Amino acid sequence: MAHPSLLKRTAAPAVPGAFARYRPNVEQTLKDIVGRDGGLLYRMLRYHLGWEDEHGEAVPASGGKAVRSTLCLLAAEALSGSHAQALPGAAALELVHNFSLIHDDIQDGSPERRHRPTVWNVWGEPQAINAGDAMYTLARLALLRLDGGLLPGKVLAAARLLDDSCLRMIEGQCLDLQYQRLDTVTSEQYLDMIGKKTAALLACSLELGALLGGGGEDTRQRFHRGGYDLGLAFQMRDDLLGIWGEGAITGKPTGEDIARKKKSLPVVYGLNTAARPQRERLTSVYAQPNVTGEGVAEVVATLEEVGAREHVQALVEYHASNALQAIAPLLPGDAARDLRDIVAFLTGRDY
Amino acid sequence: MAHPSLLKRTAAPAVPGAFARYRPNVEQTLKDIVGRDGGLLYRMLRYHLGWEDEHGEAVPASGGKAVRSTLCLLAAEALSGSHAQALPGAAALELVHNFSLIHDDIQDGSPERRHRPTVWNVWGEPQAINAGDAMYTLARLALLRLDGGLLPGKVLAAARLLDDSCLRMIEGQCLDLQYQRLDTVTSEQYLDMIGKKTAALLACSLELGALLGGGGEDTRQRFHRGGYDLGLAFQMRDDLLGIWGEGAITGKPTGEDIARKKKSLPVVYGLNTAARPQRERLTSVYAQPNVTGEGVAEVVATLEEVGAREHVQALVEYHASNALQAIAPLLPGDAARDLRDIVAFLTGRDY
Repeated sequence: MAHPSLLKRTAAPAVPGAFARYRPNVEQTLKDIVGRDGGLLYRMLRYHLGWEDEHGEAVPASGGKAVRSTLCLLAAEALSGSHAQALPGAAALELVHNFSLIHDDIQDGSPERRHRPTVWNVWGEPQAINAGDAMYTLARLALLRLDGGLLPGKVLAAARLLDDSCLRMIEGQCLDLQYQRLDTVTSEQYLDMIGKKTAALLACSLELGALLGGGGEDTRQRFHRGGYDLGLAFQMRDDLLGIWGEGAITGKPTGEDIARKKKSLPVVYGLNTAARPQRERLTSVYAQPNVTGEGVAEVVATLEEVGAREHVQALVEYHASNALQAIAPLLPGDAARDLRDIVAFLTGRDY
Repeated sequence: MAHPSLLKRTAAPAVPGAFARYRPNVEQTLKDIVGRDGGLLYRMLRYHLGWEDEHGEAVPASGGKAVRSTLCLLAAEALSGSHAQALPGAAALELVHNFSLIHDDIQDGSPERRHRPTVWNVWGEPQAINAGDAMYTLARLALLRLDGGLLPGKVLAAARLLDDSCLRMIEGQCLDLQYQRLDTVTSEQYLDMIGKKTAALLACSLELGALLGGGGEDTRQRFHRGGYDLGLAFQMRDDLLGIWGEGAITGKPTGEDIARKKKSLPVVYGLNTAARPQRERLTSVYAQPNVTGEGVAEVVATLEEVGAREHVQALVEYHASNALQAIAPLLPGDAARDLRDIVAFLTGRDY
């Protein structure tokens, strides 16, 4: 039997308790918002959320991890003692995230997500555009449900925060697609891109929770900053999984990011810092119009060789640690433990 | 020289003064919201809005008619004596409308709009999806600018109204695409579809103006109802132009709606009410996988023969007249005249 401390470093961290604790309430709020309308538009939404198959039949839940709602509710509960008043905000975050997934899948031409055909793959791109637009609209309508328990001025502040973050997210998605057509991007461009594409909504999740939990401006900013770092760590970890992850875990074919010429961090690192022979190997693969299986294998081997994997893992740990330092001191003991579990889970390491 | 009364029935009505009166303020508000960011995302938005060419160079304004903002400002000014406080709402309506156009053009594969290549045609579908998503987000952020002059509760009511209407609009777009794949649809299905796709946002435009102008619940409802009828008339007129309009005026190739198997009202009427020989002629054309130029000509001739054009024109006039009856009594004399001009302009007739 391996030594426990070794196991601790390599085994996948357990799913944090906070996910399970909030999930039933988040899911019920989402179901109330999406409703049971039998039209195609709403069937596409329930399908994407993992509640129904493509014929509208109920299936065992297979939705995502609900990371954003969990972070929001954890912050709200830590500051106010209750998460109930933040549920519409948490649901709005999940709907925004899922809107972005539906449109991303069209943009990337991804045939599968969470081991099921994507919405466009079942109903075609034009209708999938509508599904994403509707999901996005429901996110806003969800947020307006906050009106029941909060002052209108606070609801407006929440709406502004969410909308600003959505705009950043869309800017990031635009940059991500642009960068796929460039030969190379700098680390600064990469950080700007994932800061918008991924970190903005995670920062928003924690800040929104703080806002709805009654936190003042300074507290909100600290949650925001911590969430931003967590988002960077999360995306960098996702970049690692996009190359070295197993399809069975990620639900995406291994090597897909490379075949699609995504400028993910290991690739950015390789293109910018590798010695000449390795850099030339990378650029010659990327210069081909299509990256084949052989090309993918060559890129992976080269990135291993130049230490891209260790470099990115070190950055994941750096940003995860920043996130914890920013937020943990603001939380009571049990919430701080929850946060540690979540950070470990999202970044694949124990803290 | 033709008799004046005959001319009056056939000449295109002049562009109403209200469009020109509000346009500079609406355009300035839109420019403040969209901003001058040099990134691709914002360049796509300024291109679509007719302010820049695809290289980011300023061009003479070539945007749309700004129907929705004009209706909103007219209502607000009629009730309160000023349109200034409603400008963010008016801008939000224009941004929502333009978001829907960017996504519609992808869904329909339309290569041109307003005599220029569509956004997807210049930058590809994935980036055009982002452009639409960003335009939609800016609409929401525009609305939140109302916060400066209005009570937060009223801003929230405006946001809810706009979001509800957007959801209807997206439902309608989903139905429109579904119906293109059906052999036939009923008049009821057609009315439900255009009520959502087009009339909901026009109803919202007038109701939002009434809300921002301080109108009570009853007044809001009357503006809403009138706007809904106006939207039906407007869409039916658009259906006529989609078959009998001249491309030079509409900016779309003549017959495009038929080639795309759109279930527009003349076609719905023909398929549901024509005698058997004509109905069989229509269905045999539509049964072909692609409708050619010859097929388009046959459909147009058949629809003429069964009186579809007159039938639809009569319905346009019926709904336009309903719209005027609902709203004109609520307006002071000059605003009522403005409304008459707008209705005449939108429905191609004098009232």
